[in-house]
Amino acid sequence: MVTDHRKLPRRRGEELSAAIYRATLDELAESGYARLTMERVAERARASKASLYRRWPTRVALVMEAVYHSLPDAADVPDSGSLREDLLATLRRMAAALSGPAGEAMRGLLSEALRDESSAAAFRAASQGTGRKILAEIVRRAAERGEVDPADVTPRRLDAGQALLRHHFLFQGPPIPDQLLIDIVDEVVVPLLTAGRSPRP
Amino acid sequence: MVTDHRKLPRRRGEELSAAIYRATLDELAESGYARLTMERVAERARASKASLYRRWPTRVALVMEAVYHSLPDAADVPDSGSLREDLLATLRRMAAALSGPAGEAMRGLLSEALRDESSAAAFRAASQGTGRKILAEIVRRAAERGEVDPADVTPRRLDAGQALLRHHFLFQGPPIPDQLLIDIVDEVVVPLLTAGRSPRP
Repeated sequence: MVTDHRKLPRRRGEELSAAIYRATLDELAESGYARLTMERVAERARASKASLYRRWPTRVALVMEAVYHSLPDAADVPDSGSLREDLLATLRRMAAALSGPAGEAMRGLLSEALRDESSAAAFRAASQGTGRKILAEIVRRAAERGEVDPADVTPRRLDAGQALLRHHFLFQGPPIPDQLLIDIVDEVVVPLLTAGRSPRP
Repeated sequence: MVTDHRKLPRRRGEELSAAIYRATLDELAESGYARLTMERVAERARASKASLYRRWPTRVALVMEAVYHSLPDAADVPDSGSLREDLLATLRRMAAALSGPAGEAMRGLLSEALRDESSAAAFRAASQGTGRKILAEIVRRAAERGEVDPADVTPRRLDAGQALLRHHFLFQGPPIPDQLLIDIVDEVVVPLLTAGRSPRP
């Protein structure tokens, strides 16, 4: 079915962007990254191709931003009062995201980035930050409660959980077992972040 | 230049395999995974295409095995007498391998595996093991010396260093700074493996 978007009421700004993000995620979920085109997303969102290209010059840019907007952001951080529970909640959210359109997008975007240097630059520029920011906020709160000594916190330690999760996702593929997330938290991330606080007997 | 391999002295078994592995690595280094074909490898190794296909049914299988044979194997493990030095030597070898044909192969194979489920199965079946085996051997020796309590050693802890290294390589790209390897060893892997032995004051 071809929709004539000119007959629809005009949408602008955030409303139009939200419809386009939704259409992008639905295309990822239904047809996968390889078959996703600007044309199909425009059709699905009942928008013009020109309105897509005005905002996102490439498919990589569109997919990255649609996925980014679908993820919990740095303001929405688990806050259970326990470092372990907050870390586990965060890894579970990341794993849940990887099992949906965001995971399909990561596979497709990384596959493209590994083949093509210009996609790689765009991918690298946008692929870092949120995960580490959420973890940094969790750890900041844990330090306020006295669970963590800030001197024990380093970028590599903040990255370790996400790196193990993504490593499993990329090299072993989905689904990600919940026991893996528990092991990552209990055997790796909590010990690293509380090394100075709870020496074992 | 087309070589008529029928005029060359017949090579068999290991000698022929070694020539084909070498040709595969040279193709990876010079032209990259995307342009590597069975035909070009056969030509370069002065072998028949049939002799390649007899041993390796697919390009994925050939490249995986050529790379595998180029890596230090589980019998060739650093043994300096110090856990930290052995870990650092191992991560440096891994990083050096990723900066050459093995890294190009990993990018190409993973890119293919992320797009195509049948390549993914072959890739997953063959992509695990050596790194973890080498680390397990290093840790076994450290335990004999009393540097490590075997009760502290878990698969996730053995994987953490390699996961952080590969995560950086895939998401940030080469080159891998030596300081990253030092940080991974000193901030993550040594603390995880000696958690029960050297509690901080």
